[in-house]
Amino acid sequence: MPDQTPVPGRIRLAPEPPTPPDGGRRGFLRRAAALSGGVVAAGAALAPARAAAEDKTALVPDWSKTLGAPVLTAPYGVPSRFEASVRRRESPGLTRTPHSSVSFTPLQNLFGIITPSGLHFERHHAGIPDIDPFAHRLMVHGMVKAPRMFTMDDIIRFPSVSRVHFIECGANTGMEWGNVAVPTVQFSHGMLACSEWTGVLLSTLLDEVGVDRKAAKFVLAEGSDGAALTRTVPIEMALDDVIVAYGQNGEMLRPEQGYPLRLLVPGVQGVSSVKWLRRIEVGDQPWYTREESLHYVDLLPGGVHRQFTWIQEAKSVITSPSGGQVILDKGYHQITGFAWSGRGKIRRVDVSTDGGRNWRTAKLQEPVHTKSLTRFRIDWNWDGGPALLQSRAVDDTGYVQPALRQLRAVRGTRSIYHNNAIQTWRVEATGEVSNVQVL
Amino acid sequence: MPDQTPVPGRIRLAPEPPTPPDGGRRGFLRRAAALSGGVVAAGAALAPARAAAEDKTALVPDWSKTLGAPVLTAPYGVPSRFEASVRRRESPGLTRTPHSSVSFTPLQNLFGIITPSGLHFERHHAGIPDIDPFAHRLMVHGMVKAPRMFTMDDIIRFPSVSRVHFIECGANTGMEWGNVAVPTVQFSHGMLACSEWTGVLLSTLLDEVGVDRKAAKFVLAEGSDGAALTRTVPIEMALDDVIVAYGQNGEMLRPEQGYPLRLLVPGVQGVSSVKWLRRIEVGDQPWYTREESLHYVDLLPGGVHRQFTWIQEAKSVITSPSGGQVILDKGYHQITGFAWSGRGKIRRVDVSTDGGRNWRTAKLQEPVHTKSLTRFRIDWNWDGGPALLQSRAVDDTGYVQPALRQLRAVRGTRSIYHNNAIQTWRVEATGEVSNVQVL
Repeated sequence: MPDQTPVPGRIRLAPEPPTPPDGGRRGFLRRAAALSGGVVAAGAALAPARAAAEDKTALVPDWSKTLGAPVLTAPYGVPSRFEASVRRRESPGLTRTPHSSVSFTPLQNLFGIITPSGLHFERHHAGIPDIDPFAHRLMVHGMVKAPRMFTMDDIIRFPSVSRVHFIECGANTGMEWGNVAVPTVQFSHGMLACSEWTGVLLSTLLDEVGVDRKAAKFVLAEGSDGAALTRTVPIEMALDDVIVAYGQNGEMLRPEQGYPLRLLVPGVQGVSSVKWLRRIEVGDQPWYTREESLHYVDLLPGGVHRQFTWIQEAKSVITSPSGGQVILDKGYHQITGFAWSGRGKIRRVDVSTDGGRNWRTAKLQEPVHTKSLTRFRIDWNWDGGPALLQSRAVDDTGYVQPALRQLRAVRGTRSIYHNNAIQTWRVEATGEVSNVQVL
Repeated sequence: MPDQTPVPGRIRLAPEPPTPPDGGRRGFLRRAAALSGGVVAAGAALAPARAAAEDKTALVPDWSKTLGAPVLTAPYGVPSRFEASVRRRESPGLTRTPHSSVSFTPLQNLFGIITPSGLHFERHHAGIPDIDPFAHRLMVHGMVKAPRMFTMDDIIRFPSVSRVHFIECGANTGMEWGNVAVPTVQFSHGMLACSEWTGVLLSTLLDEVGVDRKAAKFVLAEGSDGAALTRTVPIEMALDDVIVAYGQNGEMLRPEQGYPLRLLVPGVQGVSSVKWLRRIEVGDQPWYTREESLHYVDLLPGGVHRQFTWIQEAKSVITSPSGGQVILDKGYHQITGFAWSGRGKIRRVDVSTDGGRNWRTAKLQEPVHTKSLTRFRIDWNWDGGPALLQSRAVDDTGYVQPALRQLRAVRGTRSIYHNNAIQTWRVEATGEVSNVQVL
């Protein structure tokens, strides 16, 4: 287990206690959590549970001899009860109140590139508001010809787009700046998710109200939750690919994702994608709001706070095998994970199993979307010895994800945000996988 | 309302009663169902509800003045309570028991191309089994060198793929063969959905057991539910893009979609994508099972039953505006819907607003996937007069979706399955939209 001692002046992350093994079904669940990404459990540790199952399947199982549940048992469907361990988790020590807190996406359990909406990480500053969409309004004003209040009906009437984009909190992987390596990828990288978002381009709304394209330099976005979160967005982004989104993965946004309306600023740290969006103001200078002056700034080695670091640079992480999992068999395994870049598309992902000495190029799941999670996969024959697993993303600007020592040389160790360093998972000869820091 | 009289010897489809309008919140919900696809309600019919909302928003809403719900209110998230009307629905007259029945996807409420897993239509022959994945096995045998039983662990260990594909029941749009036009697109086309599926290629498993590639001509797939549903699949498909799938939209399959394992035969009628998959047998001739001899056959004009009609030909439907919706304003609207083809990619979708006299080409949502739902969108300025809305898909083989008269000329009117005719929605001067048959 990595050191869980709180670092003075720092947030503390701790995993939930592992599910105790008790054989049979629960045994499977524990393994299933590890398996969903491809780590195979076929060894001695689970032999008793396996043997019980072999007995079970020697007979025709009950579900082959009976009627199952009727249609519409769930008019809106839910996962199998055997998947109850696949859930968002809060890190108990990370935040002081449940209303200004974070839950993490179980990346180790995900397949493909779409994050189920029910597993999309949460970050709230004043809890999840329960908004009546009929009463909700979006005001667009400032340096525009015809300021206007839009109803949800108005917004849905405009021409729409649907695009696949990731959202990553700027603080994702923040603990790795120091020597506190949290145990699982859910807690190290789980403020990350990817959805098919639907809405109207912000540029469409800005043109509708007659934005002053010469004078306008920035827009302010404001949420209607109790925190009234506000962020400045440069006009170049606002007129490019920013979406005023009402749809997520085919349906209306989930409440914790901004229902009924949110901003979606592709490639930019999550806080800019203001949820429960009620106001867009057009201006000619940044607003220097609380969440861009006091928070979401980077403390550089010289003591300077770097502000307005919008873009999430290229990054990747192996989700299987990953920390907390156990590899129970030698031989063939599929190493898989995510790569993403706030600058555009992922061009290449390299994988090392020896801590960065040798690299092989992984396969990317096609098609590769811009500013989206990209799934990579590569074959690995595990010889049963210790290994150091790493992945390294390259985006279509040619930018290469840095090693931790390279990032520290520029940024020091006192940042919270924008850690995009290469992640290392150590595999022991026992098959146990843990989070280690390799400079 | 279309004729709901049962046709002798035929299944009967009927919509659920519409939600009664009672102003305010419920009023919005009713409109929201119509709106999600872009039909705007801003007219007189809902003026009282609108006025109430205007009063409401004159004050700062409660949700801006209070703390919302804490993080992890739902460790596995759910939609807003205001979206309760967005749900799968059963057609009461369609089937005799709730265990061998169908629920329909609310296509009119969907955005983009991904169907939320909770809204994916259901078709069961003996209900939804509750399968313990630890005890589940897949047997692969027949004309192979080394027949084998696979555990879920074994299967997840193989190299995986994730691909976006639609599933359409062969009976989708079955009622439209006759003169019984069901009122909404949920009931006319809702045995249709599209997901990002993850699993191992069937070809990988067949090579693992040493399939006899010279002698093998077909495989049989068998489900482990009480119905033990069986279907024959040609070996060319089995060795091409058929997936043994365990993942759907980023997580494990939902129970009603085959948890923990299903076949996914891209482009082929849904019944071939056998759920709760327990057995694959390799052979050299079709099995002529019940579900491919007695059911899922096409009765042609001469009295011949056409069998083994695997592929779903190119088809499209406008989901907004669509039957049961009301357009409340003249002026700009976005017409949108889905196109798909079991042969490959959609190349083009044309849209007519005058019953097929004039056509304009719609925009397709990029990227276009093969054997996937493709979202099309086109601008429309409604002049307030009657209109007949149609869409016509062309796939990358050059095949053009037929008019109903063209399809009937070949197939007659006594089929149940494989109706891919152009769908027509009639818009009245009142804005009401209904399902009509235009030959």
